[in-house]
Amino acid sequence: MTFLKIFNLKEDHMSETHKGQEQSIEDYRIQHPPYYLPVGDEVTLFRTAHESRVPIMLKGPTGCGKTRFVEYMAYQLKLPLITVACHEDLTASDLLGRYLLKGEETVWVDGPLTLAVKHGALCYLDEVVEARKDTTVVIHPLTDARRILPIEKKGQIIEARDEFMLIISYNPGYQSALKDLKQSTKQRFISVEFNYPPGEPEAEIVQHETQVSKEIAKGLVKIGQKIRNLKHYGLEEGVSTRLLIYAGQLIQKGIHPRNACEVAIVQPITDDEEMQRSIREIVSTIL
Amino acid sequence: MTFLKIFNLKEDHMSETHKGQEQSIEDYRIQHPPYYLPVGDEVTLFRTAHESRVPIMLKGPTGCGKTRFVEYMAYQLKLPLITVACHEDLTASDLLGRYLLKGEETVWVDGPLTLAVKHGALCYLDEVVEARKDTTVVIHPLTDARRILPIEKKGQIIEARDEFMLIISYNPGYQSALKDLKQSTKQRFISVEFNYPPGEPEAEIVQHETQVSKEIAKGLVKIGQKIRNLKHYGLEEGVSTRLLIYAGQLIQKGIHPRNACEVAIVQPITDDEEMQRSIREIVSTIL
Amino acid sequence: MTFLKIFNLKEDHMSETHKGQEQSIEDYRIQHPPYYLPVGDEVTLFRTAHESRVPIMLKGPTGCGKTRFVEYMAYQLKLPLITVACHEDLTASDLLGRYLLKGEETVWVDGPLTLAVKHGALCYLDEVVEARKDTTVVIHPLTDARRILPIEKKGQIIEARDEFMLIISYNPGYQSALKDLKQSTKQRFISVEFNYPPGEPEAEIVQHETQVSKEIAKGLVKIGQKIRNLKHYGLEEGVSTRLLIYAGQLIQKGIHPRNACEVAIVQPITDDEEMQRSIREIVSTIL
Amino acid sequence: MTFLKIFNLKEDHMSETHKGQEQSIEDYRIQHPPYYLPVGDEVTLFRTAHESRVPIMLKGPTGCGKTRFVEYMAYQLKLPLITVACHEDLTASDLLGRYLLKGEETVWVDGPLTLAVKHGALCYLDEVVEARKDTTVVIHPLTDARRILPIEKKGQIIEARDEFMLIISYNPGYQSALKDLKQSTKQRFISVEFNYPPGEPEAEIVQHETQVSKEIAKGLVKIGQKIRNLKHYGLEEGVSTRLLIYAGQLIQKGIHPRNACEVAIVQPITDDEEMQRSIREIVSTIL
Amino acid sequence: MTFLKIFNLKEDHMSETHKGQEQSIEDYRIQHPPYYLPVGDEVTLFRTAHESRVPIMLKGPTGCGKTRFVEYMAYQLKLPLITVACHEDLTASDLLGRYLLKGEETVWVDGPLTLAVKHGALCYLDEVVEARKDTTVVIHPLTDARRILPIEKKGQIIEARDEFMLIISYNPGYQSALKDLKQSTKQRFISVEFNYPPGEPEAEIVQHETQVSKEIAKGLVKIGQKIRNLKHYGLEEGVSTRLLIYAGQLIQKGIHPRNACEVAIVQPITDDEEMQRSIREIVSTIL
Amino acid sequence: MTFLKIFNLKEDHMSETHKGQEQSIEDYRIQHPPYYLPVGDEVTLFRTAHESRVPIMLKGPTGCGKTRFVEYMAYQLKLPLITVACHEDLTASDLLGRYLLKGEETVWVDGPLTLAVKHGALCYLDEVVEARKDTTVVIHPLTDARRILPIEKKGQIIEARDEFMLIISYNPGYQSALKDLKQSTKQRFISVEFNYPPGEPEAEIVQHETQVSKEIAKGLVKIGQKIRNLKHYGLEEGVSTRLLIYAGQLIQKGIHPRNACEVAIVQPITDDEEMQRSIREIVSTIL
Repeated sequence: MTFLKIFNLKEDHMSETHKGQEQSIEDYRIQHPPYYLPVGDEVTLFRTAHESRVPIMLKGPTGCGKTRFVEYMAYQLKLPLITVACHEDLTASDLLGRYLLKGEETVWVDGPLTLAVKHGALCYLDEVVEARKDTTVVIHPLTDARRILPIEKKGQIIEARDEFMLIISYNPGYQSALKDLKQSTKQRFISVEFNYPPGEPEAEIVQHETQVSKEIAKGLVKIGQKIRNLKHYGLEEGVSTRLLIYAGQLIQKGIHPRNACEVAIVQPITDDEEMQRSIREIVSTIL
Repeated sequence: MTFLKIFNLKEDHMSETHKGQEQSIEDYRIQHPPYYLPVGDEVTLFRTAHESRVPIMLKGPTGCGKTRFVEYMAYQLKLPLITVACHEDLTASDLLGRYLLKGEETVWVDGPLTLAVKHGALCYLDEVVEARKDTTVVIHPLTDARRILPIEKKGQIIEARDEFMLIISYNPGYQSALKDLKQSTKQRFISVEFNYPPGEPEAEIVQHETQVSKEIAKGLVKIGQKIRNLKHYGLEEGVSTRLLIYAGQLIQKGIHPRNACEVAIVQPITDDEEMQRSIREIVSTIL
Repeated sequence: MTFLKIFNLKEDHMSETHKGQEQSIEDYRIQHPPYYLPVGDEVTLFRTAHESRVPIMLKGPTGCGKTRFVEYMAYQLKLPLITVACHEDLTASDLLGRYLLKGEETVWVDGPLTLAVKHGALCYLDEVVEARKDTTVVIHPLTDARRILPIEKKGQIIEARDEFMLIISYNPGYQSALKDLKQSTKQRFISVEFNYPPGEPEAEIVQHETQVSKEIAKGLVKIGQKIRNLKHYGLEEGVSTRLLIYAGQLIQKGIHPRNACEVAIVQPITDDEEMQRSIREIVSTIL
Repeated sequence: MTFLKIFNLKEDHMSETHKGQEQSIEDYRIQHPPYYLPVGDEVTLFRTAHESRVPIMLKGPTGCGKTRFVEYMAYQLKLPLITVACHEDLTASDLLGRYLLKGEETVWVDGPLTLAVKHGALCYLDEVVEARKDTTVVIHPLTDARRILPIEKKGQIIEARDEFMLIISYNPGYQSALKDLKQSTKQRFISVEFNYPPGEPEAEIVQHETQVSKEIAKGLVKIGQKIRNLKHYGLEEGVSTRLLIYAGQLIQKGIHPRNACEVAIVQPITDDEEMQRSIREIVSTIL
Repeated sequence: MTFLKIFNLKEDHMSETHKGQEQSIEDYRIQHPPYYLPVGDEVTLFRTAHESRVPIMLKGPTGCGKTRFVEYMAYQLKLPLITVACHEDLTASDLLGRYLLKGEETVWVDGPLTLAVKHGALCYLDEVVEARKDTTVVIHPLTDARRILPIEKKGQIIEARDEFMLIISYNPGYQSALKDLKQSTKQRFISVEFNYPPGEPEAEIVQHETQVSKEIAKGLVKIGQKIRNLKHYGLEEGVSTRLLIYAGQLIQKGIHPRNACEVAIVQPITDDEEMQRSIREIVSTIL
Repeated sequence: MTFLKIFNLKEDHMSETHKGQEQSIEDYRIQHPPYYLPVGDEVTLFRTAHESRVPIMLKGPTGCGKTRFVEYMAYQLKLPLITVACHEDLTASDLLGRYLLKGEETVWVDGPLTLAVKHGALCYLDEVVEARKDTTVVIHPLTDARRILPIEKKGQIIEARDEFMLIISYNPGYQSALKDLKQSTKQRFISVEFNYPPGEPEAEIVQHETQVSKEIAKGLVKIGQKIRNLKHYGLEEGVSTRLLIYAGQLIQKGIHPRNACEVAIVQPITDDEEMQRSIREIVSTIL
């Protein structure tokens, strides 16, 4: 399993780092090539969008590889990647930065978006629809021809570097009337659809990440596909590639395949006993 | 593509600029003539309203050129333009300014509206209906014969300079009962309606911004028009000129037109599979 | 058009004024006689209420002259006028004042109501029903025989000067069950009803404010009256005198009367296409 | 009209008083005997409750004399009176006190309830049901045998002086399911019902407060009584004695009785045109 | 009537006490034996729970003696008692403590729960269901085998002294779906039911607290019992022992028994006129 | 009964500890082996998940041993355990840490999650679904291949130590539509189901924790099982092992078994009188 070593905080260095609190953009560079298997023209589209300075939206279900794809592209483009997991309490200030009292002075600390804009990094706002509305509006002037970031608290306008690119993710399965991106936001992005990888590549991914036998990997993917078909029968969301990998990891460590699937697949995706029984049956016919 | 160079923050100058934090109104001057193609008498109306010191409201759908029009007018009138993208958490203080602790003293930092009022700039409140209600009320004394801005926190009243003008935008398609401007606000503005440009000028715009062939530009606009007609069949909002430009940019960079339209038009404007199919058909009959 | 010069903040004086931050009640004196045409006994009633130290409520639709009337009375009574546009986030502290950190000391800064109470000014709370509930309660002890303002944060009670008078405005057309003044508040005010001026005086006002010909002025007023009759056919609120003046200003500057009415009347008061057509017809039969 | 001179803040003394910010309980003493006409055994009950150290609740409609009665009792008992008009944003801290930064030190400033408890004053919480729930709970240990006020922020418990008495008012006509005192609060008070005074005393009050002729006073009271009967026909609340006094004051200053009743009675109590006509008819048959 | 003298804050000592702000646990000791008449095995159960270090919940209606019982047990066990009246705005920090700025340093001030945990006091959270949810969760680790109080703000874990005991009260009559203790909270307490005392002891209590004659005391209790039976006919809650004592106190001071019952019983428990008549009838047949 | 001695705060050491405020990870080590009786393969699964660096979710009802299991595993793995009881007001900052003013400097204080990530501890978020949404999102990058904790306020990214493991608990019986973990969170954990222990082991646990006779222990467990069957007849949740232990403790201290079951079982789990009767019957047939 490829680990993304962003920076390894060692105990003895920690206190200094804490004092200095220097925000180094270099910390956001991806050191090792992330494992990613392209399944369509998403790599070309991303490169072209980046060259055209057009922002991009990744549409797709949870755990199908969107985050990994962005890491892969950041590595390919040799650019730092700043990822922000959005949530209901994320405000514009969390993205832009804020004043902090330090000794006797107030100092400005750049937020992740400001950092990316200034240094020409990729900025990935994961599940942006979860964020508070002011966040969505903050990205508007960055996503049209102006490509600027006004920081009202400082009375400052920052023009994005050419390398800067905004990426957002969006899971259409989740959206309700209450939580949807406004058209005036959506129409600022080109939008690439993601889905679970097809059988062949998904088995390859599972095997690569878990070291299980080809047979087991194929079996897990087959289970995944059959469960995803249950979605039309009341399952909230299909099983992610990530969970298939979890199951593979447990099997590889000696857990019986059915027990591994019970805790890595059946229990995580549903609390409904009826549905659990159906999934267990799928598992037991295949593994 | 014309880039609006407001000011280019260079790394080496940045730290100084940060220290000084001088809010210079000159930063808000538009340096290069923005590309804008007038389609009616909006330019004359804007000029007359400015001369009569009457505030103006721009009504229209997303991505049809309202922001560009305001930039164009600011350039024509040789006035700085301060744009505020309104959102649910925008308070009156965000517009007026606030006290900040600096060293041992509390200093007042003007908000964007105060800056504009003092220096006689254009102030553009984009999607003002999204802002909190106190914001709407703050603009009342600026939009009648008084043309004053009371800053209660400072016990001060500022009379607007003659050049100052307030512009707000408003998308009638969005408004619900909960989020509508009050009549006591609406009746303080003259109101100009905007829409997507007619076929000829829109093709000219797409071509100017993307450098695609006239034929491709015309094709994209034709697609745009046909999609906009779908609005009566359940499409939330028509496709914006901006998205047509995105498609053109991708095509110009070598992406196949249908793929370009898929990611720049089909995916951004709808998640509905049925609707996506209809739009794909429109695309494939034209390009 | 008569401009109310409260004080003209000149660039070169600004920094000093900012430093001192002296709240001078003199800044709230109205320098030039505001143009106001009495239409009933409102002037006498206001004077008598002021003499009897009874607070007053002005009831009526938007843009019919309530604010101008209060300015007129302030000028007549030679008293300063402090106006507060109320909104959903206006708290009692915004009216009363608050402690601010200044250098090493906390200093108290009087709010607009406290200022008015201490100096015997008129205090006009515009659309008081919009304010938060604590605001409404703050004015209770000022509006009965006690005429006192307790400032709990300072443990202080201020007795109002004899010249002090509280004026509130209220638009009955707006009120819903959720947003209504409580009887225990309403029954503390005498209440004068306002409405659009009758045809003759309204034409006089339009002409005075815009310099259009008598004929145009009469035409605009006739349009206004016909539109106000549409209120029973679904129009949210009639057209205000202010909008008629806007239309006149545009016509006087050379805009074609129908275009002027389109942007100053049709577009501001409704987004409903059906209703817009009806109003356009009214306009075209008269101008 | 008897004015309650609590303390007259003179301009020249103001700055000093502001500096010192001494909370003197003497400021809360009522200097002149308030005019109050007892209508039942309320005076005896109040005295007995005070002797028995039992808190009291005054139930009744707006403007019927509850506040005046409390002032009268405070004067009779020679005790200071601290009145707090409760509202939706009134918190426990507003009543108890809070820490304030003063120069380099944090100092505690007693709230009105703490002041009353320490100095043995009467504390009158007007419309307590409007306050936030924490306020209601703060008074619990003061209203049972313990008679203590725990100030958690200071880790302190203050036992009430014997003279201290808590009085709350409550308007049963207002209460909804959402806004009602809990039984665990109600059952801590003895409760005296108030209503508009009977005809004879009410006319005496109106005459005393306005100096109108006995005939006019009687006429106004008769109008009041007839309007109060309309309550069963959809009027939200009857007309208060206060409004009758307002009408009398205007008449005394020369306003025609019908005009005085229009602005002091008809307009304040209802916006319903039908209801206004009925009230006008009552007025015109009597005055 | 037995008064609980926790500490008597004398004017002359006050300023010093204020400066020092020492939170002495001794202030929470009960000086005089509270009057309490046991009606079941509640005393033994409380003692056993205390010995077993099991927390206890007291279930029952308002004013039936829960608070007095806890005071009685604290006195019997010779332990300090810290009572917190819970309310909707009570946060975990209010219980645990918080940092306060003092001169140039931030000092930590223990909240009531922390004080009790550290010093082995009884901590009584009255109507805990009213508190905010974080409060309920704060007590979880204190109410299982761990008996610890983690103070996250200080990164500290405090183990409760053996004498510490948590007591909560709960009125099942009040609970709605929205406001109920979670099972994961309820199942952490043994739970003792309280109710109004039976006739004999209740008369004894009333007599003890008011000094009225045995006959009057018995009459008041009889009235109480009959009113409590009305609960099935729409009365929100029965009359508390406390109100019977209030009535007795007024009678003892010379108020006519029916008047005393009117203000101490009829008016406090209901605003419904029908219900008031029924209660008055009960009163007049007995006293 | 085994007490978990995390650290025993002695009075005399307290003031120092307070000054220093050193957050020592050693304080979170479990000193004595917690008593836990494994009932399935949960121990192996936990160990494997820990080795595979896969986070774990424990699903099950209140009081069935989830917390004790985590303590047991922490002791077995010789790792510190940081437990956070989640609640509605728990924010991301509560987990991550915050800046505190200390003397003249602002110092950062690590939150419990940061502490665990840095030092390779187990971090147990109890009832994570109760926390605010930002909390849930904070754990996302910790629960995929990245295993990083971005602390946006410090512009820092901390990579988790290999020993670090995240454990969350979740009670499926509680979840409503409003309060459920998102699939994008659930699918990041393997998930082990917990339930009340089977009869034999549960009796063993009760006996071990209370020292009652085997017979009494078996009786209590039998009562527990019969009550749990009532869940299908309207009981909100079954009786927990914890309550059975409470009952045993009271019996052991000499309380009559039926009285012990009344206060430890009947009263805590339901307020419904009908249901209480049924449970009492179960109790009286067995003990």
